[in-house]
Amino acid sequence: MPKNTLLDGLLAPGFDEGSCLSRYQSSSYRKASSRRPSSYLLSRLRSYEDLHKRCGPHTKSYNSTVEQLKSGHGASSTECKYVVWIAFSGLGNRILTLSSAFLYALLTNRVLLVDPGKDMADLFCEPFPEKSWLLPIDFPLKDQLNTFDQETPHSFGNMLKNNLLDTSKESLPSYLYLHLAHDYDDHDKLFFCDQDQTFLSRVPLLIMKTDNYFVPSLFLIPSFEHELSTLFPQKETVFHHLGRYLFHPSNHVWGLITRYYQAYLSKADERIGIQIRVFEEGTPQHVMDQISACTLKEKLLPEVDLERSIVASSGKQNLKAVLMTSLTSGYSENLRNMYWEHPTVTGEVVGVFQPSHEEFQQTEKHLHNRKAWAEMYLLSLTDVLVTSAWSTFGYVAQGLGGLKPWILYKPENQTAPDPACRQVMSMEPCFHAPPFYDCKAKTGVDTGALVPHVRHCEDMSWGLKLVDSPDEL
Amino acid sequence: MPKNTLLDGLLAPGFDEGSCLSRYQSSSYRKASSRRPSSYLLSRLRSYEDLHKRCGPHTKSYNSTVEQLKSGHGASSTECKYVVWIAFSGLGNRILTLSSAFLYALLTNRVLLVDPGKDMADLFCEPFPEKSWLLPIDFPLKDQLNTFDQETPHSFGNMLKNNLLDTSKESLPSYLYLHLAHDYDDHDKLFFCDQDQTFLSRVPLLIMKTDNYFVPSLFLIPSFEHELSTLFPQKETVFHHLGRYLFHPSNHVWGLITRYYQAYLSKADERIGIQIRVFEEGTPQHVMDQISACTLKEKLLPEVDLERSIVASSGKQNLKAVLMTSLTSGYSENLRNMYWEHPTVTGEVVGVFQPSHEEFQQTEKHLHNRKAWAEMYLLSLTDVLVTSAWSTFGYVAQGLGGLKPWILYKPENQTAPDPACRQVMSMEPCFHAPPFYDCKAKTGVDTGALVPHVRHCEDMSWGLKLVDSPDEL
Ligand SMILES: Nc1nc2c(ncn2[C@@H]2O[C@H](COP(=O)(O)OP(=O)(O)O)[C@@H](O)[C@H]2O)c(=O)[nH]1
Ligand SMILES: Nc1nc2c(ncn2[C@@H]2O[C@H](COP(=O)(O)OP(=O)(O)O)[C@@H](O)[C@H]2O)c(=O)[nH]1
Repeated sequence: MPKNTLLDGLLAPGFDEGSCLSRYQSSSYRKASSRRPSSYLLSRLRSYEDLHKRCGPHTKSYNSTVEQLKSGHGASSTECKYVVWIAFSGLGNRILTLSSAFLYALLTNRVLLVDPGKDMADLFCEPFPEKSWLLPIDFPLKDQLNTFDQETPHSFGNMLKNNLLDTSKESLPSYLYLHLAHDYDDHDKLFFCDQDQTFLSRVPLLIMKTDNYFVPSLFLIPSFEHELSTLFPQKETVFHHLGRYLFHPSNHVWGLITRYYQAYLSKADERIGIQIRVFEEGTPQHVMDQISACTLKEKLLPEVDLERSIVASSGKQNLKAVLMTSLTSGYSENLRNMYWEHPTVTGEVVGVFQPSHEEFQQTEKHLHNRKAWAEMYLLSLTDVLVTSAWSTFGYVAQGLGGLKPWILYKPENQTAPDPACRQVMSMEPCFHAPPFYDCKAKTGVDTGALVPHVRHCEDMSWGLKLVDSPDEL
Repeated sequence: MPKNTLLDGLLAPGFDEGSCLSRYQSSSYRKASSRRPSSYLLSRLRSYEDLHKRCGPHTKSYNSTVEQLKSGHGASSTECKYVVWIAFSGLGNRILTLSSAFLYALLTNRVLLVDPGKDMADLFCEPFPEKSWLLPIDFPLKDQLNTFDQETPHSFGNMLKNNLLDTSKESLPSYLYLHLAHDYDDHDKLFFCDQDQTFLSRVPLLIMKTDNYFVPSLFLIPSFEHELSTLFPQKETVFHHLGRYLFHPSNHVWGLITRYYQAYLSKADERIGIQIRVFEEGTPQHVMDQISACTLKEKLLPEVDLERSIVASSGKQNLKAVLMTSLTSGYSENLRNMYWEHPTVTGEVVGVFQPSHEEFQQTEKHLHNRKAWAEMYLLSLTDVLVTSAWSTFGYVAQGLGGLKPWILYKPENQTAPDPACRQVMSMEPCFHAPPFYDCKAKTGVDTGALVPHVRHCEDMSWGLKLVDSPDEL
C-alpha cells in the first residue's frame, strides 16, 4: 500500500478493498494534500463511526425510533438521535448539502441517514464501517420524503409560525422536517439560532432538505463555535476534509475516472481544469471570450502566435492537458482548434479534452450522474483549476482537490465581465442563500461582516464562505 | 541531423530547411520504411531534378515553348517537353493524380508543371531544387485550364474521334489536352496504347486532367514495361516512394501535424488510424457496427467487458491511441464513449481522437484543405490502419505510411458487409476507372488478369492496383 492511502488518517482502515477501489487508490491519482486534518477531527470521526455502528439501520435503537415514529405519539427520549438527508437538486448540490448535514450530525451527535434518491448507492461507496448510511426502504416516512417542501405543515418553520411548537415544554414531536432550501422563509431560518438549536437537540429525528452548503452559518452559532474551531483550526478545509472523508466514487464511477485519466491526462506535464457552467442557451461568444481573457491574463494557458506557423520550444517540450467540462461541446472545440491551428508563443503543446457534452441536466439518468460525478472528480485531479460562478459542480471539484480556483465572474447582459476572473480566497464552497439575522438582537445583520473567517463570496455578493483568516491563526 | 533524414536517398540534399521543415523532420515522426527505393529510381530522380532545373518555369526552353503556344502555329521540335497537371477533385485525388502525372513525366522525359489551383502552394513545399513546379500565372492557357472537360475540342480523344489528328504526319499540335477523368471515353482511353504514346511523345505540351491514379495501366503499356520494373522492382512501392518524394507538407500544415501528434498521439504505446469516409448522410448505425466488427474481429482493438466496471491490467498498462478521421463526429464519439464507459478485457487503455469534423467537403477553403492534408498525413504516422473503401484519402495515408490497411468493404443497402473488412494485398492505391481494352487486338479484355502484378482491387472489383507478386521477384 502506498504511503498516504488513508489520507493522513482521515479514512478508517479495514474496509473491503474490492468493494470500493477508489477508497484505496485515490492517493495514487491525487497529489498529497498540504492540509492535514486536526487530530481532534480524526478522533471525532472515529467516534462518529462507533455511533453509526451502534445506532445505524436495523440496530435496536434505530428500530425503536422507527416504532415511535409509527405510533404517531409524541417522543420520549431515545438512545440515538437521527438526521435524515433528502436527495435534492443536482449532484454538486447534493454532495455539498450532504457534507453540511454530516457536519451538523457530528456537532449534534446525531446519526446521519441518507435518502438514496435515484442513485446514491450507484454513485458512492458506503463511507462508514459496517453499517450502511442509506435509509432503509421500509422507513415509515419514506414515501413522503420527496413531497416535503416549503408548505409542509410538519416543518419546523411552519410549526413555529403556527405556534404549534411550545419550545419550552417537555412534549416533543417524534420528528421535524427542516426546510433549508433556497426558498426557505424567516421561520425556517431560525434553524440558525442558538435557542432553536437547543430545542431541536431534543427531537429524536430531524429530516432535512436543502440545496445549500449551510456550513458557514453553523460557524456563526455560538454554541457550535468552540467545537468547530477545534475540529477545523484551518477554517477553509471543512469541505476539503469532510468531502474526502465521505465521498468515494463507486467502482462504476471509479472506472470512468481512472480510464479517462489514464487515456487522456496522465501523460501530461501539467493538467488544467476548466469547468464551464453557463446558465443561458447555446455557446455564447462572450463566454468564450471570457475563458480566453481569464486563462491568458492569469497566465494559466500560453498565448498563441497568430503570425508564425511553427514555434520551436526551448528545451524539453512541455505538454499541458486542459480538461474542460461543460454541458455543450463548443467551448472545448474552440479552444482545441485554437491550439491546433496556431503554435503557442512558448512552444508548449496544449491538448484539450472534454469527457462528455450532455447538452442538458438529466438528473434522473444513471449514466448521466455517473459521468457528472466522474467529471467533478477528474477536475479535482488537476493542478490548476478555473471554475464558473454560482456552480456547486465547481465547488465540489475545488474542495476535493484542495485547489483555489480562478473563478469566472458571472456574465451580465451577455457581455464578458472585466476582469474576467479572480483567484478565490479559499477553497470552501459558497453558501448561496444565507440568513441575515441577528438571533439575539432579532434584527437584520450582515452575516458576512461578523467574524473574519466568514466572508462574502467572490462570485456572489450575498453568499457566505469560510476563509482562513491570518489574524486568527 | 538524424540518420535517415533523406529517406534512403529519395530526397535531394541542399534545400533550405526553414522554408520546408517537414522535409527534414518527417523522419523523426515516421518509422523508417522497410522498403528501400532502387538505386535506379534514385538516379532517375536526380536526373529529373536536373531536367527540371534546365527546363522549368522561365528558363529559355520554357519561354520558347510558351512563345510557340502563343503563336498558335503548329509545333516544331523543342528542347524540353512538358506535362501540365490540372488541380481537380478532392485533395486525396489530387495527390494521387499528381503522382501519376509525375511518373508519366519521368517515363516520357517531360517536365511536370502544376496548375496551383486554389491552394497547392499553401499545402505543399516545392519538391524540386531551385525551379518551382508551379505553372507561372502568365502561362498562356492559364484561364482555360479549369474549363477543360470531356467536351473540349482540343482534347486528344475528341481530335482522334473527329479525325483531326493525322498521327502519321509530321505536323503536330502545339499542345494537347488529355482528358483522363472518370467520365473519359474510349477515344480518351487510347492514351493507354503504345502507338498513341508514340504519337504523344512528339507533342511539346500535354495538359492533363484526371481524378484517377492511372499508374497500374502504365504498367500494361509495353514500351514502359522495362523501365518501370527497373525503377520499381517492388511494384507495390510506386506511390510509397513517389508520394514521399513529392509531397512535403508546407510549414502551415506541418504545424498542424506536429502539434496534433505531440498533443494527442506521441505518448501512446500504439497508434491505430481509422479513416471513415461514408458516401451517405449522417452517422449510420451500420457503419458503426462495421467499424466494431472489423477492429474487434481482426484484433486491432481490444473488446470491452460489459459486466465488470474495472479490469486490472496484468503488467505495464498499455495505452492505445485511436486516430479517427471523418467528416462527422459521431463514430469517434461512439468509440470514445465505449472505451470510457467500459474497461477492456485486457486492461489496456484506449483513447480516441478526431482532429476535425468538417461536416462536408469544402475544397475551396484554405484551412479545410490544410486540415484534410494534415489528417491524411497523421493517419500515415499510425502503426495500424483501417480505411474506407473507394477513398483516395485513405490510399494516400496508407501509401505515405507504407501500411497495408484493413479496408472496410463498401456497405450495400444500408447493411454492414460480412466480413466487415480485410487486409489489403498491397499498399498501392486503386485505379478506379481503368480501361478494359486490348490495344493490339482492338477488343475488350480484363486488364486485371493480364499480368500477376496488376490485379483487381479489394474494395472495387473493376479497379486495378499494383501488387508485389512473389513469382516475379
Ligand atoms: N457531465 C456533466 N454534467 C453537468 C455539467 N454541468 C452541469 N451538469 C449537469 O447538471 C447538474 C448541475 O447541478 P449541480 O451538480 O448541482 O451543479 P450546479 O447547478 O452548477 O450548482 C449536474 O449534476 C449534472 O447533472 C458538466 O460539465 N458535465
Ligand atoms: N478534414 C477531413 N476532410 C475530409 C475527410 N474526409 C473527406 N474530407 C474532405 O473531403 C475531400 C474528399 O476528397 P478526397 O480527398 O479526394 O478523398 P475521397 O473522396 O475519399 O477519394 C477531402 O479532400 C476533404 O476535403 C476527413 O476525414 N477529414
